[in-house]
Order: sequence, then structure tokens, then C-alpha cells
Amino acid sequence: MRFSHLLSQLSAVDASSDRDLAGDPDLSGANALDAAGSGELSFLEPGNALTAALSACGASALLLPADAELQRQASERGIAWVALKDPRLGFAEALEALHPRRRPSPGQHPSAVVDPSASIGTGVHLGAHVVIGAGSVVGDNCMLHPGAVLYEDVVLGEGCEVHAQAVLHPGSRVGRDCVIHSQAVIGSEGFGFVPTATGWHKMPQTGLVVLEDAVEVGCGSTVDRPSVGETRLGAGTKIDNLVHVGHGVVTGRGCALAAQVGIAGGARLGHGVILAGQVGVANRAVIGDRAIASSKSGIHGEVAAGEVVSGYPAIPNRLWLRCSAAFNKLPEMARSLRQLQNAQARETDGSGAPR
Amino acid sequence: MRFSHLLSQLSAVDASSDRDLAGDPDLSGANALDAAGSGELSFLEPGNALTAALSACGASALLLPADAELQRQASERGIAWVALKDPRLGFAEALEALHPRRRPSPGQHPSAVVDPSASIGTGVHLGAHVVIGAGSVVGDNCMLHPGAVLYEDVVLGEGCEVHAQAVLHPGSRVGRDCVIHSQAVIGSEGFGFVPTATGWHKMPQTGLVVLEDAVEVGCGSTVDRPSVGETRLGAGTKIDNLVHVGHGVVTGRGCALAAQVGIAGGARLGHGVILAGQVGVANRAVIGDRAIASSKSGIHGEVAAGEVVSGYPAIPNRLWLRCSAAFNKLPEMARSLRQLQNAQARETDGSGAPR
Amino acid sequence: MRFSHLLSQLSAVDASSDRDLAGDPDLSGANALDAAGSGELSFLEPGNALTAALSACGASALLLPADAELQRQASERGIAWVALKDPRLGFAEALEALHPRRRPSPGQHPSAVVDPSASIGTGVHLGAHVVIGAGSVVGDNCMLHPGAVLYEDVVLGEGCEVHAQAVLHPGSRVGRDCVIHSQAVIGSEGFGFVPTATGWHKMPQTGLVVLEDAVEVGCGSTVDRPSVGETRLGAGTKIDNLVHVGHGVVTGRGCALAAQVGIAGGARLGHGVILAGQVGVANRAVIGDRAIASSKSGIHGEVAAGEVVSGYPAIPNRLWLRCSAAFNKLPEMARSLRQLQNAQARETDGSGAPR
Repeated sequence: MRFSHLLSQLSAVDASSDRDLAGDPDLSGANALDAAGSGELSFLEPGNALTAALSACGASALLLPADAELQRQASERGIAWVALKDPRLGFAEALEALHPRRRPSPGQHPSAVVDPSASIGTGVHLGAHVVIGAGSVVGDNCMLHPGAVLYEDVVLGEGCEVHAQAVLHPGSRVGRDCVIHSQAVIGSEGFGFVPTATGWHKMPQTGLVVLEDAVEVGCGSTVDRPSVGETRLGAGTKIDNLVHVGHGVVTGRGCALAAQVGIAGGARLGHGVILAGQVGVANRAVIGDRAIASSKSGIHGEVAAGEVVSGYPAIPNRLWLRCSAAFNKLPEMARSLRQLQNAQARETDGSGAPR
Repeated sequence: MRFSHLLSQLSAVDASSDRDLAGDPDLSGANALDAAGSGELSFLEPGNALTAALSACGASALLLPADAELQRQASERGIAWVALKDPRLGFAEALEALHPRRRPSPGQHPSAVVDPSASIGTGVHLGAHVVIGAGSVVGDNCMLHPGAVLYEDVVLGEGCEVHAQAVLHPGSRVGRDCVIHSQAVIGSEGFGFVPTATGWHKMPQTGLVVLEDAVEVGCGSTVDRPSVGETRLGAGTKIDNLVHVGHGVVTGRGCALAAQVGIAGGARLGHGVILAGQVGVANRAVIGDRAIASSKSGIHGEVAAGEVVSGYPAIPNRLWLRCSAAFNKLPEMARSLRQLQNAQARETDGSGAPR
Repeated sequence: MRFSHLLSQLSAVDASSDRDLAGDPDLSGANALDAAGSGELSFLEPGNALTAALSACGASALLLPADAELQRQASERGIAWVALKDPRLGFAEALEALHPRRRPSPGQHPSAVVDPSASIGTGVHLGAHVVIGAGSVVGDNCMLHPGAVLYEDVVLGEGCEVHAQAVLHPGSRVGRDCVIHSQAVIGSEGFGFVPTATGWHKMPQTGLVVLEDAVEVGCGSTVDRPSVGETRLGAGTKIDNLVHVGHGVVTGRGCALAAQVGIAGGARLGHGVILAGQVGVANRAVIGDRAIASSKSGIHGEVAAGEVVSGYPAIPNRLWLRCSAAFNKLPEMARSLRQLQNAQARETDGSGAPR
């Protein structure tokens, strides 16, 4: 695809966008700046660590920020470029154009098992060995890959994609355009047991899980249903692999949970909360809008809107950075303290040494 | 269901239980205290954080503790109630009565694949695409949901439930009334490799996994078999989602392992051990009966029976709480220490300033 | 099997190996030193914690290190033995001989679904409900267990084993003799989203995953593909259960990643890197050859070749051990510091007390 043709498909490019077509190269793909070769597109963001790599860049075309010096360098090297406010977003659109998604054709594989009481929309693809339970509803244009299982009374909105071997338990409600990745489990029983003299007594988990529109749940991640009420993931929330979302958790819109995050039962997340990898959130914790937790932190209690927290128990990130730096000097501190104590002991030991 | 009829099904309610039927409302469901509306049951425990919510509670009926003031408030608001020693346990029983479990009917789906040498008990449900390997035994009244796989020589006791896509590897022995949740893997190869000059040499994992009666293994959790001997989970042990139990681990009865716990090979847990979310237990660690580890702690060596530990490396919880509080003051401590050092340096620098 | 016959199958045993056949016992199996009984083989390593158990050992035969005292004890107890340089490696070979692997017979189960454009090698076993997508290639002598799914254009080298319910996404390239355990997911979409004013915009993940020869990926582990380029696991790398390998990660040969490790996008690991359980590695971190991270550590930035690191943020293990020990004394340190401050305050408070 010619660079000019690609540009015509990027939402942020218009007639006024600065550019240098440099012969309008033919592009066959895209790559990272330090790996791109002839026929490949790449991009640079403001402040990108790879900026230095531009001087050795072998790409044929670049999406650049509004930076005259970078643009000059590209032109000098004969690399075609266009200037974008958000080159990364442009790169995402370019990848969509260069590598249009393969979409399995509508239809039901003969090995799929669909309960007669289920309702399947138009344009739906049901792959090999898919199972759709009684009363479940699959919206138009959904794609279910091999081995995906819907128990009874599951509702999938339009345009959802359910990857191979994912499982949705009874009563799960999934909005439009959601993606459930392989091995993810939606709507499984929450971990609720009452201690008794004879052991753990199961608390029935009669609630359900609601995924609002455009939610994505990563491979192997689990979203449990609660004993009563619902577990709810707000619209546009994206969840990475191997994340656990406990029973009764509610998140706002547009949260992002990185891999191996665990959220215990009843926690509440506001809109746009970002939790980095391996973060843990305790039962009934409350996290305000746009708060961010850095990797491995552990959150109890409350985090205010917009706060950035770290560590376990989590504290404000700036404080944590200073505390962590001090932690690494603890042996020194302990030694200094002992020296001071010894000095004081000598001063006050009554030995009569003149001062 | 009338409240009085529901009460007749709760094991802890008898003629002597205090109550106020308040018109004996008809109940259609149950909910949390702050969410319950008309026609719904809820409950309050002693010390429950939601106690204040009673004054605005919209529930039609309540399970209350032996607390005259709460009972008075409920009666005043016209809410039916009964007093129970353990309202939470009563609520669990009430949920069972209000939402009796759907049980798939016995029988084998035509798409299930059962080896001729396998033995299937009476009343067993085998869902779509279930696979039962050679020599495996499925006890009476087991339910296997779509896509569950038993390799060869697996034994499932009576009344087990295996959820969609769970996998049991060769030789696994499962007691009565166990629940294996979706994507869980039982009896997979332990992670054992011998370092050699030419790389890692696999240590064959010829042992097996034993789950005693009433064990529950959460979604995506893995219980590995050892090279020799067995991995064993004691009766009534409950495991949440995404937990890893390494080869040769042995637990006592009634343990509870929260989500994302990891237990390395050869560790030993006593009876009633509770590990909170994301806890890690090192190879060959030994944890005594009823010990508790708070979330994210990491255990090496030995934990005494009844101890509560926290942190990494785990230390007694009370000490850890004080250490963590002090950690947050490390920058201050470092500054104070420098001031003292400077003061001492001035005192001893021989500048001759009179004192 | 006679001990002498078993010895003939161990690569490290030759005519010159020290031994005492002690009647050449018949061996039916193997066990740990403290559990082995009559008819069982066991082993002892130099420095093994179980050395004391030799005095009560019930095994019929032992693999011992070059330790005359241990050999004398074994002979005295009438236990047959052979001396090996690496008894653990010998034990691995002995287990292979005593418990030869069951290999499912070649052939395709009638319920398997194989796209006509896929290419299946000779001697391949395709179990029940296996799915092979368009254009995929399965090398000779591969074994795919029930429910394993290959999307389109996956390549499996010769002699691979794919366990029940594992999933390989489009374009994944797997070398020879790899093992993909149950529920593992290879080649799933990396977690890449661009923040925009209207929410997260998906970055298409058009790259692919490459597993070199003899790689093993544990149950439920996920290896994501990147937006461009590849995610690559070096030959002989072994990955335990529930590990997340992010998009664009590259490892060298012979790495070992223990359970629940998480590696964020773009990190680089050298050869022979060992990460213990629950370790986290941040985006674009770089870890040198043979570096080791102890459990739960969190790595940012760079770790030098051969270094051993611990803690979060990870620091050299020796320093961390001292810092952790000091952490447990923080409350004492804080108290001592206050005492010194108070003493100084008394000295300098101008109260006129004679000095």
C-alpha cells in the first residue's frame, strides 16, 4: 500500500497535515523504529526513548510528532513522513489498515452444540465445539472461537468476540463489542464460605456478572459473581491476562488492569483507574477516579481520586520512592545509630573524661 | 416464599428463636443490607459495618444477631426479623432455599467421548464435549460440564462437580463432593528440572494428586503432581481462583487459599491454615495449624500454629504493622539521624568553641 | 526391574562406578528418601537435608554421591547403591526407566476438527475435540491432547506435546520437542491500548510468538504476541504455571521462570536467567545472562549478568538480606532515635543545667 493511500485512512491526517511523501513508498508492513526496514512504516512519539534510533532508521515511512528537527532528519534520510498530534494512535490505525483483521465467516460449525432455546443473532460465527446453553442469547455479528462455552442464560451483546476455550457462567450479561480472551472465565462462583464448627459452609453465589460495552477480559482472567447483587465492569474497561476480579467488585468506565492484578470481593474502582501488574486490592477497598497504582502495590482502605500510590501497604508514590531509597540504606542507618548511641554512652558513662 | 416458610428451612431457627414476623412478607430474593428492597431478605452480623444502614433499610425481612436494639429498630420500621446466633450462616441457608441450584439432568451428551474402559456411576451428567479417558472412574451423581477432560486413570468420588474446561491429569484421585471450577488443572506435571551442562533435564513426575472429600479448586488454579509420592489437599480445603499448588505440597483439613496464592514444591500446611490473596509460600516451608498469612506475604521456613504473619519475608503481624508504619517514616528518620550526626560532628570537631 | 538392569540404563554409570549391589534387589518404583520402602529406589545429593534420614531409610537401593561415609552406611544397612557424580540426574533417568511414558497411539480421533488446508505429519496423535485451523502445520510425532486448539497458521515442530485445552493463536511458531501444558495460551493479543479522549483505542497486535526448541510452557501460562515484531522464548526455556509473558518479551536460552512470574512488554532476558515465584519484571527491563531473582522481587531497569537480586525494587540479594533484617528492627531503631533526640534536646535546651 502506498504511503499516501495509507494516510488517507488515518483519522488524524487531513490536507493541512505537514508531510514529506519522499517518493510515496510502497508499504508492506510496520515495525518498531529500531527494527523497521525497507517497505516498513514506523513511528516516533515525543520523548520516545528511540529518538536516537532515527539516525540509523531503515524504515521507508514514519509517523512523526510536531518536531521540526525530527522531520528534517527524516527528510534528509529520504524517509517519507507525516506529522501527527498522536503518532501512536496513528500507528494503531495504520496497523489496522495494513493488517485488516481476518474475520471468520458467519455460520455454525457442525460440531457446535446450541441449545434449542438459545437465540443466535445474524452474522454470528460459532466455531468448532462451541457450546451455547439453554436460554442464552448471542447478539448479531458475534464471533465465538473453538471450544468457547456459554452456560445457561448468558447474554452477549452485538459484535462480541469470545476466544477459544473461554467460559461464561449462568446469567452473565455482556454488552456490545466486548472481547473475552482464551481461558477467561466470566461469572464463576465467588469465593464465599462461612466458617462453622464443622468446616467451611458454602455461601451460594446467586448474583451475576455484568460487563458493560467494549470491555475486554484477558486470557485466563476470572470475574466472579457475588452471593447477591452484581459484579460490574464499567464500559471500556480493559483487563490483561491472569487477573482475578472478586465477587461484587464494581469498576467505573475505562479502567485498565494489567496482568496478574487481583481485586478482592466488594472493592470499588472509579472511572479510569489504572492498576499496574501484580497489584492487589483488598476487600471493600475504594479507589477514586483516575487513581494509579504502580506494580505490585497492595491497596487497603481508600485511595483518593487522581492519586498515584505504590508499595504495600500502598502510600503516595512520591513518599514511597523516598522510603524505598531509604530502605536500601537501612544497614548504614543502623550502623550510624549505633555509633551515636555508643558516643552518647561514652559521654554519659561517668568515666570522668574531660570534655 | 413466605418468611415463615423460609424460617422453617433454616437449621438454626427453632420455636424458641426470637422473631417478629411483621405480617409474614412474601420473599422473592435476597440482597445486601444497603441494596435490599421490598420482597427481599437481608442480614446483619454483630459488628457489621452496615449496621448504620438499618435505619434506611428497605428489606422486607432480616436475619439479625441477638441484639435487642437492632431488633427494636427493625420492628419499628415494620421489617420482619428472626434472631440467629450466626446470621451469615442463616443467610447462606436462606439463599439455598430461595435459589435452589439448577442441576443438569443425568445422562451423557452425544458429543461426549467416553473411553470404553471408563466406569461411569449412576445419576451422572456428562455435558457436551466432555472427555473421559481410559480406566477413569466417575462416581455416582457427578456433574461434568461442557469440555471437562479427564485423562486416564482419574477417579472422581460421588457427587463431584467439574466445571467447563477443567482438566484432570492421569492418576488424579478426587474424593466425594469436590468442586473443580472452570479451567482448573489437577495433576499436571510438577515443575522439576535438573540443571545439566546441556540445559534443563526433565525430572519425570510420576506421583499423583489426591484431593480429599469436599475440596474445592477455583477457576484456573493448578495443582501439580510430584516426581514421586503425592500432592494432597486435606478434606474441606477451599481454593480460590488462579492459585498455584506445587508438586508434593500437602495441606491439612479445612484450609482456605485466596486468589493468586502460590505454594512452591514440598511445602506443608497444617489444618485450617488461611492464606490471603497473592501470598507466596517457599519450597519446603512448614505452616502450623490455624496459622494465617495476610495478603501478599511471603513465607519461608516455619510458621508456628496459630500465628498470624505478614510481609516478606513474613514476620508476626503485630511486628509487621509497626515496621510498616515506621517504613513510611524512613525519610524523616534518615533526616533526624543526619541532624544528630551533624550535631555530634560539631561537638567533636575541635573547633574550640567554648561550651 | 533388577537394580543392575536399571543401572545399565543410566548414562552416568559405567564399569568404573563404585557400587554395592547387595543382592541386586528387584525395584518396583522410587520414592523420596524418607518415604521409600522395600522395592523402592531413592537418592541422596551432597548436602541434602535428608542425609540424616539415611540411618532410618527403608529403600532397597540408592543413588549416592561420592561420599565414602554415606556408602559405608548404606552397605551396613544392606541397601544396594551406586555412586554418581549427579545423583539427582541419575534419579531422573531412573524414573524414566521405571515409569516409561505412556504415549497415546498415532491417529486422529473422529471428533477432532482439522481444516483441509492444515498439514499433519506422520505419527501424530490428535485427541478428542482437538481443533486445527487453516494453514496450520503439525510436525511428525506431535501429540495433541483433548480439546487443544490451534488457530490458523500455527506451526508446531516435530515431537511437540500440547496438553488438554491449550490454545495457540494465529501465527505462533513452535520449535521441536516443546511442551505446552493444559490451559496455556500462546500467541494471544498483547495488552496494548492507546489512551484517547474517548477511551482506550486498541493497538492491533500483528506480530507473532516464537518458541524455540525444547521450550516448555506451564498450565494456564500466557505468552502474548506484540503489535509488531515477535515475542521469543529461547531454546530450552522452561516456564511454570500461571506465568504471564508480555508482548515483545525476548528471552535467551535455558531460562527458568517459576510459577506466577509476570514479565511486562518488551523486557529482555539473557541466557540462563532464573526468576523465582511471583517475580515481576517491568516494561523494557533488561536482565543479563544467568542472573537470578528471588521470589516476589520486582525488577525495573537493568540487572547485570550473574547478579542475584531480591526485593522490590530489586537490589542485590546480599544487601536486601541486610535491609530486610534491619526492617524488622525499625520500631527499635525509631525508639533509639527518639531517645537520642531527647538527650540532645536536654543538652541544648538552655535550661542552664551544669554540664
